[in-house]
Amino acid sequence: MRTLCTSLATAEPGSPVTLEGWVHRRRELARVTFLVVRDRTGLAQVVLPAGTRVPPEETVVRVTGTATPSAQAPGGVELTDAVVEGLTEPAATPPAELWRPRLDVSLPVLLDHAPVLWRHPAQRARWELAAASLRGFRATLDALGFTEVATPKLVGSATESGANVFAIDYFGRPAYLAQSPQFHKQQLVGVFERVYEVGPVFRAEPHDTVRHLAEYRSLDVELGFVEDHRDVLSVLREVLAGMVGAVAAAGDAVGRTGARLPVVPEEIPVIHFADALALVGAPADEPDLAPEHERALGAWALAEHGSDFVAVEGYPMAKRPFYTHPWPGDGRWSNSFDLLFRGMELVTGGQRLHRASDYEAAIRARGEDPAAYAAYLQAFRHGMPPHGGFAIGLERWVGRLVEAANVREVTLFPRDLHRLAP
Amino acid sequence: MRTLCTSLATAEPGSPVTLEGWVHRRRELARVTFLVVRDRTGLAQVVLPAGTRVPPEETVVRVTGTATPSAQAPGGVELTDAVVEGLTEPAATPPAELWRPRLDVSLPVLLDHAPVLWRHPAQRARWELAAASLRGFRATLDALGFTEVATPKLVGSATESGANVFAIDYFGRPAYLAQSPQFHKQQLVGVFERVYEVGPVFRAEPHDTVRHLAEYRSLDVELGFVEDHRDVLSVLREVLAGMVGAVAAAGDAVGRTGARLPVVPEEIPVIHFADALALVGAPADEPDLAPEHERALGAWALAEHGSDFVAVEGYPMAKRPFYTHPWPGDGRWSNSFDLLFRGMELVTGGQRLHRASDYEAAIRARGEDPAAYAAYLQAFRHGMPPHGGFAIGLERWVGRLVEAANVREVTLFPRDLHRLAP
Repeated sequence: MRTLCTSLATAEPGSPVTLEGWVHRRRELARVTFLVVRDRTGLAQVVLPAGTRVPPEETVVRVTGTATPSAQAPGGVELTDAVVEGLTEPAATPPAELWRPRLDVSLPVLLDHAPVLWRHPAQRARWELAAASLRGFRATLDALGFTEVATPKLVGSATESGANVFAIDYFGRPAYLAQSPQFHKQQLVGVFERVYEVGPVFRAEPHDTVRHLAEYRSLDVELGFVEDHRDVLSVLREVLAGMVGAVAAAGDAVGRTGARLPVVPEEIPVIHFADALALVGAPADEPDLAPEHERALGAWALAEHGSDFVAVEGYPMAKRPFYTHPWPGDGRWSNSFDLLFRGMELVTGGQRLHRASDYEAAIRARGEDPAAYAAYLQAFRHGMPPHGGFAIGLERWVGRLVEAANVREVTLFPRDLHRLAP
Repeated sequence: MRTLCTSLATAEPGSPVTLEGWVHRRRELARVTFLVVRDRTGLAQVVLPAGTRVPPEETVVRVTGTATPSAQAPGGVELTDAVVEGLTEPAATPPAELWRPRLDVSLPVLLDHAPVLWRHPAQRARWELAAASLRGFRATLDALGFTEVATPKLVGSATESGANVFAIDYFGRPAYLAQSPQFHKQQLVGVFERVYEVGPVFRAEPHDTVRHLAEYRSLDVELGFVEDHRDVLSVLREVLAGMVGAVAAAGDAVGRTGARLPVVPEEIPVIHFADALALVGAPADEPDLAPEHERALGAWALAEHGSDFVAVEGYPMAKRPFYTHPWPGDGRWSNSFDLLFRGMELVTGGQRLHRASDYEAAIRARGEDPAAYAAYLQAFRHGMPPHGGFAIGLERWVGRLVEAANVREVTLFPRDLHRLAP
């Protein structure tokens, strides 16, 4: 019967115990050899006579011995009178010493050796925050009456944005990888009113930046019967609070990453796009915020509102997709927003058009034929409520949470312009 | 302030109420007009004077009126003195009458008009069972110490099986859509010990059958420190019980689908592949089970063990992937299994090889070069525990649960040889 490493602390002193895990560290001293075993729960210390042959780091072992109180051991109990049995061949030397407190390797080394280097407790903890975030995201939305959906990643046309799309050979005809579940999640508002999806999205992103990936996890939400984009922002606020709450509850993973958890304010500060431009000293005709503008707005929100989050609403219609709902009374602006977290765009959201006639006009205004959108427009012709939604990028979220320099550091197996392996 | 349809039942008699939803049904009688409103929670009845103009079915409306007890209304309360306001243009006539108890349309009609026909309460309930199943899957595994992971769907080689893979143009070089997260979930056992993932998998499936799709949702599990495939099967049993439990708790959705929920036995009956062949009267050298064999085994399990589930273990090594662990003492057979649910293969699982040297030998035995698998083999060279796992097809699960004739009937937007829309 296997005892987990962290459960050794509660083992009866003198009782027989079997641990199974990886050799995390060997320390061969003059009078004693220490073996630290690692499993999914943490570390445990094994004491062996000096000169005992111990398998190299990362070898998988079964260790049988006696639970013995020890002030120096993790959890206050160590294993003595131990027998170590290798469950695999002796492991090859890892590309970095995983027992050191920090994994001090360059980004290419981290990514090339991801299957091994993610084993480092501080690195693994970063993904544990991602997994906890997903739990918090779903639990919050389940409680608000949302239904989880699964929309196709293979789509027949590249109509949503056109650019940066991956083409595939689909039984001899062209198909594309979905850049987002946007069209399908809207259609499903007609069915379930409130939907969410966690899934991969694909961008043939030709830029090599610290915040773009060719494949990432999008946390998508869409809901009907909203007044405007502010109702969408209210749900986003609840979701972020639920995600932070789940992360805070994720055991010692926060401590292992050194992350500072944000406080999600009761009301996220909101600034209009035009005011945001003025605030950061950008020309009034700028169509979008540059990364340095986002950083300046993040600093402003922290100084002025004590908030790690700030929403910029009213983005120019010219820069938003055709399904965006305009700002009532002023068609230059839109009922959409970006949410910045610690000075970086984390979420895009807003209210969408909901009348079939508005869609047809918007598509014609782009010089396109509504017939190309027939499948999508079905939902609107058959009655769709005022609705809106948002999408959170999981990797950016975790990246900002742990203040990583590059989103690749928090992605298990990143994909970009240059990288398709491991 | 909006009242949800099912909450009308608890509204104070005589109090003002606002409903928002779709016109589910109009009934214009000689002395009164009934309007049934549908929202995500269910239906509510509105009473209007005869001759009131009511928008057509599926139009989105806001209805304000007075809560009035009525024995005939759903929930025992209806809305009287009501004012109906259209929130969208009048809806186009749906391709089928959604208020009828059964959605009686052909499969092509159902699939072509999916955005509208999924609104039918009985059809929508099928997906609600899928969503509940996902909740049960994750809750069971979270409680067992598993970590949710996200593995890349874009992969650099088609090595896992070679056949039936979709090729994509990846910034000018070839890449492929992952047929399963198999390689990556194994690597992550080295990090987290116990992992799961819910995500799309892609098969360029040239067969047009009632149970194959080009894209489906795979519920993947992998765990370390197993004795053999029977430990994997034990976890599968817990997962299935958790899924059935969550489905049973999903409100009235089960009733709307008419599904008979299975009982998951404490021990799922297991039969060896060789015995299964004999039982169904197939030649002893058959390498696999045909669909009619699966049906016969399903009938046997029900008759003999009272079980909707039966596991067939020991499949011939010749038909299993190279990473499959052989049956100890008899290399013809493997430590793998398929789980049949109501006579159809639902799950494939088993124990995997875990020693780097066994992988190299298995790859060479296929006439391939282990160097082509370098990224994958890293994990094994650096110490991997005995491990195994399984994958459940979500659409097959729901299909068997509601006893649908075709897996497409329970898929929101199916993708196959012929279909890329809606």
